[in-house]
Amino acid sequence: MKTDPSQAQPIMQPLIVVKAGGTQGVDFSAICRDAAVLIAQGRRLLLVHGGSAEANSLGEALDYPARFITSPSGYTSRYTDRRTMEIFIMAVNGKVNSLLVEGLQVLDVNAIGLSGLDGRTLVAQRKAAIRSVERGKQKVIRDDYSGKIKTVNDNLLKTLLADGYTPVIAPLAISTEGQALNVDADRAAAMVAGAMQAETLVLLTAVPGLMSAFPDESTLIHSMSKSQLEGAKEYALGRMKKKILGTEEALGMGVRKVIIADGRIKNPITSALNGNGTHIS
Amino acid sequence: MKTDPSQAQPIMQPLIVVKAGGTQGVDFSAICRDAAVLIAQGRRLLLVHGGSAEANSLGEALDYPARFITSPSGYTSRYTDRRTMEIFIMAVNGKVNSLLVEGLQVLDVNAIGLSGLDGRTLVAQRKAAIRSVERGKQKVIRDDYSGKIKTVNDNLLKTLLADGYTPVIAPLAISTEGQALNVDADRAAAMVAGAMQAETLVLLTAVPGLMSAFPDESTLIHSMSKSQLEGAKEYALGRMKKKILGTEEALGMGVRKVIIADGRIKNPITSALNGNGTHIS
Repeated sequence: MKTDPSQAQPIMQPLIVVKAGGTQGVDFSAICRDAAVLIAQGRRLLLVHGGSAEANSLGEALDYPARFITSPSGYTSRYTDRRTMEIFIMAVNGKVNSLLVEGLQVLDVNAIGLSGLDGRTLVAQRKAAIRSVERGKQKVIRDDYSGKIKTVNDNLLKTLLADGYTPVIAPLAISTEGQALNVDADRAAAMVAGAMQAETLVLLTAVPGLMSAFPDESTLIHSMSKSQLEGAKEYALGRMKKKILGTEEALGMGVRKVIIADGRIKNPITSALNGNGTHIS
Repeated sequence: MKTDPSQAQPIMQPLIVVKAGGTQGVDFSAICRDAAVLIAQGRRLLLVHGGSAEANSLGEALDYPARFITSPSGYTSRYTDRRTMEIFIMAVNGKVNSLLVEGLQVLDVNAIGLSGLDGRTLVAQRKAAIRSVERGKQKVIRDDYSGKIKTVNDNLLKTLLADGYTPVIAPLAISTEGQALNVDADRAAAMVAGAMQAETLVLLTAVPGLMSAFPDESTLIHSMSKSQLEGAKEYALGRMKKKILGTEEALGMGVRKVIIADGRIKNPITSALNGNGTHIS
């Protein structure tokens, strides 16, 4: 049987999922420039972003400042009532997502912005009641619109990538009932990387990587194995705790390597791929 | 040669493009409900929306109220400097687009929100200098980010429709240089309808249709031909002027019928298709 070489499947480059943190200091322009260079070299990229700093400042400007919840096990998350959800949507899916898409388009990357609502890209289970610790006392919150991602519409993302688009995903999900939910961006990136069988997940943030004694940068961990993650949950602080959870989830779903690296520097993705930050595999 | 019936192309329903106006009074919930019923019946729909009321109120809340430009020929448009563009993006591509997508998803329509930036869905030519009339005097404005649509990425929209998604498009375009531009939503809907060879374009707004002596509703025009549009430009006032221009453009590109109809009522799309409003063909 003869094979027609023009019909051969192109050799697909392994996929890299990059999460651009929404914390103050992370340089979105540098991330766009680096992504554009990598894509021009033929690499396949997919971006997930945060936007906490923008959501906080829009909340302040609209006299509805952000409030945060600390769970009994020490994880912090945004308290998202319906008004906060609308502010979050405007800041994160409106401004941050559109400006990232524009920043990539200016560099000739045909980016396409999506939130998890669009095409049910991210379907999550709403947390009906969440426990919060305030001044040592536990209380139960029932009007929070946040959730845990259950499924990723990998078909849509694969179609877009195959057609030459670069998806840029905002951390909103849709509940099984069709409501908008706030989801953690690190864990959203982990779920996308897992569902897409990405080779690498790069979590770019405003610190150099995971430190065993934060904020002492001399305690930066350069590489660790999956089995050491359980211990890392003990010394990881604040939002780093979620990155550790996301790392665990991504590796558990078959992602080969997760890199937690500095998003404040020039060429942050390339630097991470070349050894910068904390490499976990 | 035998044909495999499972390989036969499904008979494609003609496409209806619906523009949901962003003016106060237009009932987005009613539009979503009606769209969901039509889609469940097998109709193919694509939505384009405005968001002027939301953009105005966000501008007020952020102490950066909207300003408008009147051209020497009497057309009014939003003066869009870069800060206004960011507010417009948050209100229109953020809030209005996401809430429309959510409103459709709750009704089991797999909607996908796009702005013209996403995948270069709408490419426009920026107006480098625009003339404005203020208190009888003409002036030239050079920091306005608005444009006129030149091309529509009909391939992306066709792929999404064929895969069962309902595109919901926000009126932003991308310039040939990759910058975000504000575009008129009526004319954006007209260009999309034209590029997609839609059968019908329905422009839903906060009036019952085109009136020869606005606001006298007894002067509502029930049907007119393309050749009468030139005359309509004389008596159409305010934003209705843009709808007449959009109607002319859509019909010129091969759309069979344009309907300008009331978006404040129950079943606004079905009512328009059944004879409500002003039918132009």
